[in-house]
Amino acid sequence: MRVVLVAVISLDGCLTRHHDEGASWASAADKQHFASALADADVYLMGSTTYTEARDNIRKRLDSGHRRIIITRTPEKYEHDTVRGQLEFTSDTPHQIADRMRADGHRRCAVLGGGEIYNLFLGSGVVYEMQLTLEPRVFGDGKRLAGASTAIDPKLSLTKVDHLSDDTLLLTYRRSE
Amino acid sequence: MRVVLVAVISLDGCLTRHHDEGASWASAADKQHFASALADADVYLMGSTTYTEARDNIRKRLDSGHRRIIITRTPEKYEHDTVRGQLEFTSDTPHQIADRMRADGHRRCAVLGGGEIYNLFLGSGVVYEMQLTLEPRVFGDGKRLAGASTAIDPKLSLTKVDHLSDDTLLLTYRRSE
Repeated sequence: MRVVLVAVISLDGCLTRHHDEGASWASAADKQHFASALADADVYLMGSTTYTEARDNIRKRLDSGHRRIIITRTPEKYEHDTVRGQLEFTSDTPHQIADRMRADGHRRCAVLGGGEIYNLFLGSGVVYEMQLTLEPRVFGDGKRLAGASTAIDPKLSLTKVDHLSDDTLLLTYRRSE
Repeated sequence: MRVVLVAVISLDGCLTRHHDEGASWASAADKQHFASALADADVYLMGSTTYTEARDNIRKRLDSGHRRIIITRTPEKYEHDTVRGQLEFTSDTPHQIADRMRADGHRRCAVLGGGEIYNLFLGSGVVYEMQLTLEPRVFGDGKRLAGASTAIDPKLSLTKVDHLSDDTLLLTYRRSE
């Protein structure tokens, strides 16, 4: 069972363009890659802010065959949204979640953000691979890839450099032991 | 006359590792690249914080044949440090500085930071090329590549991807018209 972090960022590590919500600023090439990264995984992990932003889309596609785990400090607030096996809410740690997904027979969990969740998972050491789309943009201001109050410094190795288009790179990093 | 931005960043766009000063966290491969980028330029542009951090080293090498322009809101505070043609302080805009360097017959100005100065130059449109060293690190916390209160979004094209080592990339972007 592998935990894979998937993100699109600007050159200055922004997830969002200034204070705009979401990643609609990303290129068509990244959107295509993101769809294929979603298809490759059987579990999606995300924070409650990301969930709230994408809630309508997520709830329309609950029967896609994927399990969605939403990480929140207050899972009880989302009791009415819960659909066992499809949409679940938890305050468990990354290790507890990864162990549970492994025990339940899942193969591949995609961590989808936002910044606090990326920070939490990278800091915990459960991330096997990072798939970073690097767009040719610099925003100066916006939500940050691993933006949280926790300073981290995981050990990573570059394993692959792909061109999604002339200007957009897909960089793959693995945790190095 | 070309203005080239030179920087080393983590995957989340940090210039510094957490609250540590400077870029001593960068790889040996980047340090070698940085030395050659410095040798290629005849003018160095930086902000007063970067100058203050590197002051002793800079003042030891004043006769290296390079001109250093330090950007500050209070040039008068640095009157005693000034050595005409080698170390100068100004509150001019990027355009004014670039025009002056062109008029003085210089060929290549390297913008060396920090975040506020990178933001200022990228926002102004005078940057011809960006040379970004991308290290396989994620810090979560630290000074940001273009960290300032000004939201920017310059048009850039990826022109080159070089491997400085197995894990360290040198990415070159040009302003696209």
